[in-house]
Amino acid sequence: MIKAGIIGATGYAGAELVRILTNHKDVQIVWYGSKSYIDKRYSEVYQNMFRIVEDVCRDDRLQELADQADVIFTATPQGFLAGILTEEILSKVKIVDLSADYRIKDVAVYEKWYGIEHRSPQFIQEAVYGLCEINRDQITPATRLVANPGCYTTCSILTAYPLVKEGLIDAGTLIVDAKSGTSGAGRGAKMANLFCEVNENMKAYGVASHRHTPEIEEQLGYAGNCDVTINFTPHLVPMNRGILATEYASLKRKPDGSLPSYEEIRAVYDKYYGKEKFVRVLEKGVCPETKWVEGSNYVDIGFVIDERTGRIIMMGALDNLVKGAAGQAVQNMNLLFGLPESEGLELVPCFP
Amino acid sequence: MIKAGIIGATGYAGAELVRILTNHKDVQIVWYGSKSYIDKRYSEVYQNMFRIVEDVCRDDRLQELADQADVIFTATPQGFLAGILTEEILSKVKIVDLSADYRIKDVAVYEKWYGIEHRSPQFIQEAVYGLCEINRDQITPATRLVANPGCYTTCSILTAYPLVKEGLIDAGTLIVDAKSGTSGAGRGAKMANLFCEVNENMKAYGVASHRHTPEIEEQLGYAGNCDVTINFTPHLVPMNRGILATEYASLKRKPDGSLPSYEEIRAVYDKYYGKEKFVRVLEKGVCPETKWVEGSNYVDIGFVIDERTGRIIMMGALDNLVKGAAGQAVQNMNLLFGLPESEGLELVPCFP
Amino acid sequence: MIKAGIIGATGYAGAELVRILTNHKDVQIVWYGSKSYIDKRYSEVYQNMFRIVEDVCRDDRLQELADQADVIFTATPQGFLAGILTEEILSKVKIVDLSADYRIKDVAVYEKWYGIEHRSPQFIQEAVYGLCEINRDQITPATRLVANPGCYTTCSILTAYPLVKEGLIDAGTLIVDAKSGTSGAGRGAKMANLFCEVNENMKAYGVASHRHTPEIEEQLGYAGNCDVTINFTPHLVPMNRGILATEYASLKRKPDGSLPSYEEIRAVYDKYYGKEKFVRVLEKGVCPETKWVEGSNYVDIGFVIDERTGRIIMMGALDNLVKGAAGQAVQNMNLLFGLPESEGLELVPCFP
Amino acid sequence: MIKAGIIGATGYAGAELVRILTNHKDVQIVWYGSKSYIDKRYSEVYQNMFRIVEDVCRDDRLQELADQADVIFTATPQGFLAGILTEEILSKVKIVDLSADYRIKDVAVYEKWYGIEHRSPQFIQEAVYGLCEINRDQITPATRLVANPGCYTTCSILTAYPLVKEGLIDAGTLIVDAKSGTSGAGRGAKMANLFCEVNENMKAYGVASHRHTPEIEEQLGYAGNCDVTINFTPHLVPMNRGILATEYASLKRKPDGSLPSYEEIRAVYDKYYGKEKFVRVLEKGVCPETKWVEGSNYVDIGFVIDERTGRIIMMGALDNLVKGAAGQAVQNMNLLFGLPESEGLELVPCFP
Repeated sequence: MIKAGIIGATGYAGAELVRILTNHKDVQIVWYGSKSYIDKRYSEVYQNMFRIVEDVCRDDRLQELADQADVIFTATPQGFLAGILTEEILSKVKIVDLSADYRIKDVAVYEKWYGIEHRSPQFIQEAVYGLCEINRDQITPATRLVANPGCYTTCSILTAYPLVKEGLIDAGTLIVDAKSGTSGAGRGAKMANLFCEVNENMKAYGVASHRHTPEIEEQLGYAGNCDVTINFTPHLVPMNRGILATEYASLKRKPDGSLPSYEEIRAVYDKYYGKEKFVRVLEKGVCPETKWVEGSNYVDIGFVIDERTGRIIMMGALDNLVKGAAGQAVQNMNLLFGLPESEGLELVPCFP
Repeated sequence: MIKAGIIGATGYAGAELVRILTNHKDVQIVWYGSKSYIDKRYSEVYQNMFRIVEDVCRDDRLQELADQADVIFTATPQGFLAGILTEEILSKVKIVDLSADYRIKDVAVYEKWYGIEHRSPQFIQEAVYGLCEINRDQITPATRLVANPGCYTTCSILTAYPLVKEGLIDAGTLIVDAKSGTSGAGRGAKMANLFCEVNENMKAYGVASHRHTPEIEEQLGYAGNCDVTINFTPHLVPMNRGILATEYASLKRKPDGSLPSYEEIRAVYDKYYGKEKFVRVLEKGVCPETKWVEGSNYVDIGFVIDERTGRIIMMGALDNLVKGAAGQAVQNMNLLFGLPESEGLELVPCFP
Repeated sequence: MIKAGIIGATGYAGAELVRILTNHKDVQIVWYGSKSYIDKRYSEVYQNMFRIVEDVCRDDRLQELADQADVIFTATPQGFLAGILTEEILSKVKIVDLSADYRIKDVAVYEKWYGIEHRSPQFIQEAVYGLCEINRDQITPATRLVANPGCYTTCSILTAYPLVKEGLIDAGTLIVDAKSGTSGAGRGAKMANLFCEVNENMKAYGVASHRHTPEIEEQLGYAGNCDVTINFTPHLVPMNRGILATEYASLKRKPDGSLPSYEEIRAVYDKYYGKEKFVRVLEKGVCPETKWVEGSNYVDIGFVIDERTGRIIMMGALDNLVKGAAGQAVQNMNLLFGLPESEGLELVPCFP
Repeated sequence: MIKAGIIGATGYAGAELVRILTNHKDVQIVWYGSKSYIDKRYSEVYQNMFRIVEDVCRDDRLQELADQADVIFTATPQGFLAGILTEEILSKVKIVDLSADYRIKDVAVYEKWYGIEHRSPQFIQEAVYGLCEINRDQITPATRLVANPGCYTTCSILTAYPLVKEGLIDAGTLIVDAKSGTSGAGRGAKMANLFCEVNENMKAYGVASHRHTPEIEEQLGYAGNCDVTINFTPHLVPMNRGILATEYASLKRKPDGSLPSYEEIRAVYDKYYGKEKFVRVLEKGVCPETKWVEGSNYVDIGFVIDERTGRIIMMGALDNLVKGAAGQAVQNMNLLFGLPESEGLELVPCFP
């Protein structure tokens, strides 16, 4: 039985970890960390867990937890883990960090986009970027620290990855127009996230400045072995869960000036995802819908080639709390402990 | 491995059966019946099941299916099963009927409220009303036909049952004001159920005439060993899933004129539900919310005693597609086959 | 031109006052009071008013405003107006108070339900309860202080009023099950009102203890000339606007034991509302929907007689921010200044 | 008094025409045309209009209506008006067509994208494309036929128009990622538009093939005096009203390689829209939200320059039923009859 601790268990991502791990046959949650609700029963904070979780919330003492747990999930604000992580802790326990602290390899980029000093840069190099479908071979029982990718990022990267990797699109033309449900904004009491402000409304935000931008660029840059600079525009949608990324890029033409065919593009997607359990490349003509993946760890991908403009429109959908956060974190944990990758993640999407 | 067939697999309740049975370790679905989509792949009708269900939809030939399956779920319109059920079929296969055909013991009442002739009344007596928490001992491997309760009904009955059973309320004063998400209206293309008609809107419907009324009255009548006549008012709410029943009844006063205390009422609820896995009586002062049970087989119940009026306000919440339909059907199936009652139903509510 | 000041202009009710008064041809808003946003442009707080309102928000100095305005609307928390109102202010300016401070004639009742001391009880008697359809003759140019009814209250009272007034129902049996959109909860940043907490969710709250209860009881008591004690249960619904009240009461039987007929009840509704512009008694068999009154000052009322139980089910729907708050306040203002009652309120409901 | 007839009065756009014209002081609606509801009272089809509209629905006999009306609005399916329009009709009455029949000047383009034959191409040249802010001087009392622009189109064009007109962006790089509320899909009973299918869901549709594409391209082509080929991707959002267009284009660099500044771009927007009542260019850093224009005729526009990619991200928001359909149609009607352009359109956006 793997003993798991969760720091930040009362945020939406933390709560989703609890939901998933509760049904994971090889895991026992030993620590529900929550700064705001110390000593309060977890099921009072999330009444859906009444009679399912009996524990009370505890402090976020990583040190103490490291002695009790085999793995710690940190679903905490940026800077938290970086501020307290030590070699001693890492020597005792594996960590899957759902924050951005160790996702970006270049400290300067992190500090610029996040506006905070990175207080433990010495672990950045060791941290594995936990996008399992791409970096699976680096996530092993020997790995100590996994930087779990962001929700927008997972969706944006996986949707374009095979084409960037194979050099089929002009990476300089990539535009990601992403739409997210509101759970991505967290459970903090902010006026902008009130029901009446979000419902029946839609807006873009963080235009040309959202923090997930450099994360996408870095990872796609590794894929294409080139610098990638993109436009990434997130939007807030009146729904609880779900991210839909609509991505545009110019296809590279063949020597004869023609565009690659649907079948050729399809073959590339199948090359990378054909055997992936959690990536479903939809059939020709089918556009992904966020509801089709709700509650599950799937990413659905579709694409259309526009002969008129020479662009490909790629679309990816996932549940931001599952594949975009907690589900992927568990997928990483499974790899860290040599379990089947989909253990505890056989979640059938819930419709409607 | 139990071989299960579903007639009406492409309605919302049928689809929920598929979702639940897909993860039930002792069941294999052998027949996805759907009159409207014969020969179409099931995953094209419900794209969330892409790469999870590979089968195509088949006809609704109960006869043929009876030879192949151990249990048949009929998630079909009223009158369908009653029109084709035969002794021969029942001799071969168990049936869990999600329609109303065998719920009401008095044929005249059925025919009056449903406005159709009952074409196989000979099976009504045999059918067990599958509200497991109440009729568990009648649902056994010897049982052939289960009438799975309606969604409003399950919620309305379970919320008031202990108090009616113990004679604590004046059954003649019972009023059930119920609110339902829109999935209860089915997947048929009706203008009234379009997004723009339902969203940002709320209404009562079927006032003093809804078909679930006599079902509630009959079952509570058995509980109280008396005639029960209620007001039942359903409302349509702009959400996908969930039923909330707010029930009002006058508490019987004690000889000294006082009302029963919170603790006395609570003890009665605990007597009936204290050991029930799927009924959660909430703590004092906590009102149920539909979101806390979403996706799960739980019913959450709370109550408040109003000293001013001498009434008790009981509140019950469930997911209409799970405990109100497919989940309860699987719970019944488990009992029919001697499996643990919660097999395949360890569904943790999804929040948010 | 009537000079109007609004204290609390940046709450949802205050913002609705701005929306309505902006199009009122006889009114000029001279003061946008907002404690939280002093010196900020109003259109930055409500971007929908960009280029429509150029003013900045000001303090809530009632004294100073009284010298500049002909009428002041106070859309403020309970206790605010009672804490600062003086004879001097009332001698200079008319006040329409959207809070509860002067609605309840019995100070003890107010102080018990609201849990605060009333600091200017000397004005309670003078204040007119501004339910125009009932108290129109008391709201005249001679009136100085109007207590604008609450949203739940307006809906609950108007729906039952004619039957209580004419003694057709047993007032002791009245139960009001009310459902409200979330704007009624205000614009304050509370976790419980976050989109992800409210969306896809429904719950009762304030069961047997909501503050609007005594207000309904008092006004219906005046109508029926008797003590009225009711059950009032509010519910939170995932929509922005709208209140639906479903009300249950036992009809008094005639000497021959029969119930009044539909036509008889209808005639009573028509007697009171037949000439009312803002109360629409729907046709037989039609149940009100909140969407049909959205954005308008209408109250829609329907009813069904249940011969089985001897009860009548009455249903009323209104927009909580319009007839339930700002629209009614303007209706009162029109009466206070001798204007046509519907001036500025010819708002056609917006559908969808 | 202008006598107005509406063909297609029971669709959502037709109903919005009724809502707006009902409050237009110079217009009387004389004909509520509705093929589906002939002889039914209009207020039974749209209960929000109960006691506001007393008329019954009538046939769609354009000939007969032409004798009675001064202006006809056709809110009808593609091909309807083109199939019955005659010189005789146009000699009697002005027509504002909300369908696409006369929007596209090149018949071949129309027939290709709409897949139907155009049956009265002789009127195409005469028809004025009724985007008032751009073609105002062609919409005069002498004009007989106005092709009212589509909802996506109005938003997409107005958002980019000044920059295309002034040659500031490379028109070949323009990508329009648009999101629409569900009322744009109409009131027809289709499964895909059921509440449970749309709610909590988001998807792209008509990718690289949506019919509004050539309309945008044509109009922007006139503006830029060049061929414009774009990517246009519409998305369905779980809200009733509102379109948000997020548009991406590469800014042309100056001779020194620098990008235009915010102020330079702003000046261009102000040049074209500074005096426009219904186009609000938001302040620096403010992104439009659909809720801010709901129920009104406004288009809100914002933009951000991304120095990293050299692109500008332009965002436009409008209410698809008002500025995207009925409001713009009334704006056109006002021009056709020499009325103030904003007559009847002083609609304050409704928030929340």
